[in-house]
Amino acid sequence: MTYEKVAVLGLGLIGSSLAHAMRRAGGMGHIAGYEPTAAVLERARAAGFADSLHDDLAACVEGADLVVLATPVGAFGGLARAMAPHLAPGATVSDVGSVKTAVLRDVGPHIPAGVHFVPAHPIAGTEQSGPEAGFAELFDGRWCILTPPDGADPDAVAKLGAFWERLGSKVDVMDAGHHDLVLAITSHVPHLIAYNIVGTADDLSAVTKSEVIKYSAGGFRDFTRIAASDPTMWRDVFLNNKDAVLEVLGRFSEDLSALQRAIRWGDGDALFTLFTRTRAIRRGIIDAGQDSAAPNFGRNKKDQ
Amino acid sequence: MTYEKVAVLGLGLIGSSLAHAMRRAGGMGHIAGYEPTAAVLERARAAGFADSLHDDLAACVEGADLVVLATPVGAFGGLARAMAPHLAPGATVSDVGSVKTAVLRDVGPHIPAGVHFVPAHPIAGTEQSGPEAGFAELFDGRWCILTPPDGADPDAVAKLGAFWERLGSKVDVMDAGHHDLVLAITSHVPHLIAYNIVGTADDLSAVTKSEVIKYSAGGFRDFTRIAASDPTMWRDVFLNNKDAVLEVLGRFSEDLSALQRAIRWGDGDALFTLFTRTRAIRRGIIDAGQDSAAPNFGRNKKDQ
Repeated sequence: MTYEKVAVLGLGLIGSSLAHAMRRAGGMGHIAGYEPTAAVLERARAAGFADSLHDDLAACVEGADLVVLATPVGAFGGLARAMAPHLAPGATVSDVGSVKTAVLRDVGPHIPAGVHFVPAHPIAGTEQSGPEAGFAELFDGRWCILTPPDGADPDAVAKLGAFWERLGSKVDVMDAGHHDLVLAITSHVPHLIAYNIVGTADDLSAVTKSEVIKYSAGGFRDFTRIAASDPTMWRDVFLNNKDAVLEVLGRFSEDLSALQRAIRWGDGDALFTLFTRTRAIRRGIIDAGQDSAAPNFGRNKKDQ
Repeated sequence: MTYEKVAVLGLGLIGSSLAHAMRRAGGMGHIAGYEPTAAVLERARAAGFADSLHDDLAACVEGADLVVLATPVGAFGGLARAMAPHLAPGATVSDVGSVKTAVLRDVGPHIPAGVHFVPAHPIAGTEQSGPEAGFAELFDGRWCILTPPDGADPDAVAKLGAFWERLGSKVDVMDAGHHDLVLAITSHVPHLIAYNIVGTADDLSAVTKSEVIKYSAGGFRDFTRIAASDPTMWRDVFLNNKDAVLEVLGRFSEDLSALQRAIRWGDGDALFTLFTRTRAIRRGIIDAGQDSAAPNFGRNKKDQ
């Protein structure tokens, strides 16, 4: 029970990793990649992870029993409209987008009768992007969340879940709205905060850019990794998960004001209590196999 | 030109790493460690990085030509007062504290005539703590900032700088106030933000703790590493660098409000512009050898 032809639309970090992971798993059917920009298509060809590459959307999705949208989410609606007439009956349309309510809204209306629609989000990535950035191990041990709309075909959902498990993922199913709130806290707001502190540092004229760089091992460098993530992808995430991001951001700012007040008034106990509580979450993440237990993420000792 | 006896007061991550790095360098004189808590002293003994270990401060500093304060900075004043009568003439007193104006304020007045005082701050660390956490390579390629007070003896400053270079560091000299502002942006505020977002996540009752942990690979896990740092040390940092931290935090919050507004009003261009600018800083840090260029900090592929 696997797919015979998988069309991957968008060949960046996630799209190319998906192809590499399918190749590693073996027996996963034909991998067709779509990318409209000639230069990027050429880079994908050089990276060599697809069985066929297309700058023509119809040719890519033709006969595919799984179509995966893997561009920035802002492009999903247009792609869905354009590919709809060419989808094979019985095919499943899915995606790898970091937001899910907006995907239901933008893609759902274009899905023809007789085609399944099962949005998905693999919680995995690096700060790198482009067709060269992908690798087969990206999804190993990470969670992939499926958010099927009401009335989705259970067999289509189960088949997509089994597909992700063969790529190394663990699979969860949840409501799109809950997904968007969970990801706002575990991914979107952390990215926003990282982008913001790096911007603030860059603007602080009393401290030179070279000082910010030289002394970044004090903690700042961790934030710059996240703040080096793909700008288009992240712009689209924030534009398409506005409500959950603003809700979590409101709570973050409230909590930060309380910390700011504790510092101003010298309330060491309040600081100590928070700083102790947060250690337990780190322990939980390591115990759950979601991060390295090595100091400094196991950066090479010479790079620590 | 090295020290004959180095007294290290406090045997946590930095104190123990200092001892390990001296051993690695070789020919660095006697290493005497001080730790008042019997259980911690025993752990230091088991770790085996010192030539002598003491729960008596006077015995530890007696005859030392370099004394390094390596406890949380809140304890510096008391230690300085207690050890002052036992310091050898011509000795240098230094430290490894993350704040420097407060160290001048708390330690300076206790330094006897004929004893040098050269505060220092190695910009290096991990999220781990305790006598077992230290390792010899911690300071390799990292910067150590010296902040000698006005009128400090140039030879004493040069000798301490040469000492840190032998431990693998690069050495800079700057004014304590400037140090505190630079570190507020490259270390203190990033830590505060990390502690804060982990606290906010822990409090958000609509998202369970197990969901926060499971889906942390979306970015959140990076923050939990920093938020697992030693609570006592960090409480003392914030209480002792109040002005610079509040100044930088004010700018951070201002910038975050602007981003929040851009999200609310769908200003994708503003988001894209910031997200593009921040990538350059990451590149600068990697080019300067201050972080790993590997994706996800080079976490083992299975841990990515």
